[in-house]
Amino acid sequence: MPTYKAPLRDMRFLMNEVFDFPAHYTTLSNGADATPDMVDAIVGECARLCEEVLAPINLSGDLEGCHFDNSVVTTPKGFKDAYDQYVAGGWQGLSHPTEYGGQGLPMSLNLIKAEMMGTANWSFTMYPGLSLGCMNTIMQYGDEAQKNVYMPPLVEGRWSGTMCLTEPQCGTDLGQIKTKAEPQADGTYKLTGTKIFISAGEHDLTENIVHIVLARLPDAPKGTRGISLFIVPKFIPDAQGNVGERNSVSCGSIEHKMGIRASATCVMNFDNAIGYLIGLPNKGLEAMFTFMNTARIGTAVQGVAHAELSYQGALAYAKERRSMRALSGKKEPEQIADALIYHADVRRMLLTQKVIAEGGRAMIYYASQYADHMTNGIIENDQKKYEYWDDKLGFFTPILKGFLTELGLESANIGMQVFGGHGYIKEHGMEQIARDARIATLYEGTTGIQALDLLGRKVLLQSKGKAVRDFTADVLKFCGRHARDKQMRRYVWDLTKLCAQWNYLTTRIMLTARKDRDIVSAACNDFLMYSGYVTMAYFWALQAAVAYEKLANGGAEQAEFYQAKIQTAEFYFERLLPRAAGHAGSMLSPSKSLMQLDKDAFAFG
Amino acid sequence: MPTYKAPLRDMRFLMNEVFDFPAHYTTLSNGADATPDMVDAIVGECARLCEEVLAPINLSGDLEGCHFDNSVVTTPKGFKDAYDQYVAGGWQGLSHPTEYGGQGLPMSLNLIKAEMMGTANWSFTMYPGLSLGCMNTIMQYGDEAQKNVYMPPLVEGRWSGTMCLTEPQCGTDLGQIKTKAEPQADGTYKLTGTKIFISAGEHDLTENIVHIVLARLPDAPKGTRGISLFIVPKFIPDAQGNVGERNSVSCGSIEHKMGIRASATCVMNFDNAIGYLIGLPNKGLEAMFTFMNTARIGTAVQGVAHAELSYQGALAYAKERRSMRALSGKKEPEQIADALIYHADVRRMLLTQKVIAEGGRAMIYYASQYADHMTNGIIENDQKKYEYWDDKLGFFTPILKGFLTELGLESANIGMQVFGGHGYIKEHGMEQIARDARIATLYEGTTGIQALDLLGRKVLLQSKGKAVRDFTADVLKFCGRHARDKQMRRYVWDLTKLCAQWNYLTTRIMLTARKDRDIVSAACNDFLMYSGYVTMAYFWALQAAVAYEKLANGGAEQAEFYQAKIQTAEFYFERLLPRAAGHAGSMLSPSKSLMQLDKDAFAFG
Repeated sequence: MPTYKAPLRDMRFLMNEVFDFPAHYTTLSNGADATPDMVDAIVGECARLCEEVLAPINLSGDLEGCHFDNSVVTTPKGFKDAYDQYVAGGWQGLSHPTEYGGQGLPMSLNLIKAEMMGTANWSFTMYPGLSLGCMNTIMQYGDEAQKNVYMPPLVEGRWSGTMCLTEPQCGTDLGQIKTKAEPQADGTYKLTGTKIFISAGEHDLTENIVHIVLARLPDAPKGTRGISLFIVPKFIPDAQGNVGERNSVSCGSIEHKMGIRASATCVMNFDNAIGYLIGLPNKGLEAMFTFMNTARIGTAVQGVAHAELSYQGALAYAKERRSMRALSGKKEPEQIADALIYHADVRRMLLTQKVIAEGGRAMIYYASQYADHMTNGIIENDQKKYEYWDDKLGFFTPILKGFLTELGLESANIGMQVFGGHGYIKEHGMEQIARDARIATLYEGTTGIQALDLLGRKVLLQSKGKAVRDFTADVLKFCGRHARDKQMRRYVWDLTKLCAQWNYLTTRIMLTARKDRDIVSAACNDFLMYSGYVTMAYFWALQAAVAYEKLANGGAEQAEFYQAKIQTAEFYFERLLPRAAGHAGSMLSPSKSLMQLDKDAFAFG
Repeated sequence: MPTYKAPLRDMRFLMNEVFDFPAHYTTLSNGADATPDMVDAIVGECARLCEEVLAPINLSGDLEGCHFDNSVVTTPKGFKDAYDQYVAGGWQGLSHPTEYGGQGLPMSLNLIKAEMMGTANWSFTMYPGLSLGCMNTIMQYGDEAQKNVYMPPLVEGRWSGTMCLTEPQCGTDLGQIKTKAEPQADGTYKLTGTKIFISAGEHDLTENIVHIVLARLPDAPKGTRGISLFIVPKFIPDAQGNVGERNSVSCGSIEHKMGIRASATCVMNFDNAIGYLIGLPNKGLEAMFTFMNTARIGTAVQGVAHAELSYQGALAYAKERRSMRALSGKKEPEQIADALIYHADVRRMLLTQKVIAEGGRAMIYYASQYADHMTNGIIENDQKKYEYWDDKLGFFTPILKGFLTELGLESANIGMQVFGGHGYIKEHGMEQIARDARIATLYEGTTGIQALDLLGRKVLLQSKGKAVRDFTADVLKFCGRHARDKQMRRYVWDLTKLCAQWNYLTTRIMLTARKDRDIVSAACNDFLMYSGYVTMAYFWALQAAVAYEKLANGGAEQAEFYQAKIQTAEFYFERLLPRAAGHAGSMLSPSKSLMQLDKDAFAFG
């Protein structure tokens, strides 16, 4: 069973040496309190909570699952106690305003916290995690009264929240939703309808649950332009935020799922439930989109989390399990056989996990600085600033979410593979990681939706390729700085060629799309994965450059760490990056090979 | 929930049009009874059994799982009844000699049967499937008395068998096994030890269970040269095959697994259990290797089975679920949205599943003819013939097992992806396929072991590259035949280049291996996957060639079928085959990028 140990050395490398978070925090309006000492203390304390409180109930939570009995949902043993400790530690409001009881720290710290918590216990982390979307909605679109009632208990964690979007007939295509909101004389609404796949929709961890619900007003236009947002609390609060009468929203059942079994996935029935309009009528979907970036990056974290956890489990096993001899001769002659870690093919697997976990972490940390600036825009009520950074973040969001969750799943499967047959047995905990990781490419927009968002929306429609040009220009600047550096040369030229290719592919697809409109959907998956491999290559080169610099400047207090970073980067460029060629190779094929087959000719009896 | 429908049209296309099984059967000493009419009747009847008896208890079997109570294992509801029908139909002895009550038909029919059964219900299929290894061992190494006692009830299916290899401390590295066999005065042995991961080790389907056990004699040399084979029956039979006293072998527990939950995976405790030596002392491992090819191809079938089942489920869902509009304009304007199947990215997923299922099936059917010849060698007691075909089959075995099970898992995951969030819910049956498929890359030799077997043993050590030269020569002959055929030209030239590259890569690795011995382990996974994609490309080109020919000769009673084959082949070459480039790109990297990282530098606290 993998025992989670927060990768603090790697996290500090990224924060202090690669991305200079201390300097970054001085540029933020809410960064003053995030001093290096404070950040270090938070990270260390969070690691302790994750290792000692959350990790120990990860496997047991999966085995027990959630219980459903007559609308009541009970979380597995230990979850309530862990949640109480989480609340007592003030963790929920880490990055939320002090005026509502939060600690007012930058959003990036919340992502760093989320990775550790999610790695220790993803199912648990979803309960407080779902509150974030709810809190963000109320913060950005709620009126003062709504903020005053809902924010303090949500920020404290005494209440939790949900996002009620999906219905039985639609998930991605929210224009199809049917839940109705009837206006009442007193200015409230009565909501009727069924929502499915509502994470944390019902549970025993908090005294109230605040649902953010997408629904239609009676006179709403059809489709996505007729969707409004409502707050529907489980218990109706009074103006002081005291919990009152039970609302007529209830959990009809919980889903039996492949994984994240300790996370309650609820069917929620709204039966003339009292709701409060939040934001403008019929503008609900636009409102949802405004914080989709942060929600999706929160899910991208899952890719890193499960890559890391599975890596930790596989690495420990590979050092301890002995089988056969290394091809280059006995490595542990005194033992009956060599440990798995001496076999090149096992190293290939471990290193693949390692480059995914550490490379993905670098990508998240980088994006988290954009999220900090974006959040600052909201705090400062500076719409322009908000939009500028939201746009910049918007390009990376589908790459992070789509690519990292796919690779997180790959890493989880590799971890099982290192264990051989034992990986398939529940008690070792490795198969749970693969099951838990499997949801990440499905929810919060499938990989296909991320791919379409990236190529269709972010790259072509919104920026006509500028998003790729901008990012590759940054990468080329890096290449320019290191082009004469002998050790970095290999990375620099690989990256330079890839930047050229990425722009070329983008332009070619853009031109082809004028005649062959399906090409965007046909090419988007390859484009997403290609973009992911190239982006990750940049962050590995960046890490290698920092490591070389530290080694060159002597005084590196831990030379082995930097050496390992360099060797891991080398592995990435030699063994994983070649996959980009495969994606480039199939991306430009016309859509014909996908579209020509008649739908009735896919199978013959 | 996917409802299994045997893909009879595709099976008949392969049997009658691509590989000409009727002509092939006339070349076999046991092929006379396999007339086209007979084969057609068998296939049709087997399809009925699979669709009507086995498929309906697939999901329920997973949900219920096996029960363990005080050494007794009970299979899920309906399994015993289904097994009785299987036995009553005479299915177990389909390809076993008539002298023991079998039907004496060619081995290939057994593989064709196994695919249908495994697709309908893999867990169920493992019970009779495990008997095969046991029967083959007794057939090839047992003395007359052993054959007379054990074969008739095994062939009938009244008894079942197991293979007891793995122990807690070793799976792949069988040289480490510890189970002891003490010779007794009466010529029998007493076996003591613990075996794990024993599929069908204990269950309620048959009146006796015959274990083939790897164990060590007291004076046995260390390692793999000191392993002998024993028959250890659950109940000791008398010379007439009547079941007698209970032997002291018992099931200590069953594993709780990610998938194939209706298949009992047992810990088997041998406590001075009576056993009978089979074959020569200390030659047990060699004996195991002689039918490893057939056992592994039986597992390769799982890749095709789960690719097919997941495809059937995803295809039905993609036609029925509606979401968004196709990028090239509304396809179902009268509906609220277009069916998923009109979206290019969904088609990419479905077609990927389709090329895996149908391409993999073609690879299995091709290899099954080699298996027929090999089995004929055994029947005819012609060791040379046996070795010739075993060798030929031996090259394909790791490709089929390693590559097809990896792609089967990919297809199963894609099937979930087509379902979106619903794919993650148990009741739809799609996630079960992914869980069931996951074991296939682990058991019967992990993918890493297949890769090492292919590159290290079959290609380099045993044949110095001849195996690749021989197969690519066959492919080039095909290319030569079609090089001037306008429609086939694209496939022909792609294949020609790949054949050249495959030989080049082989030679380069062979030369590098002289200095860098770890390269074989470092490159083997890429080599395996590369070999798989190229081999599958050949079989897709072959299918396209047949389809073009049928269309050109008019009179094709079902032009849509041939057209679909051609379009599917086109998809394979444009969209899947480019992955081979990625594998070629990383394969030749020296092993340094894998081997240089110190084992203590994989992670820092």
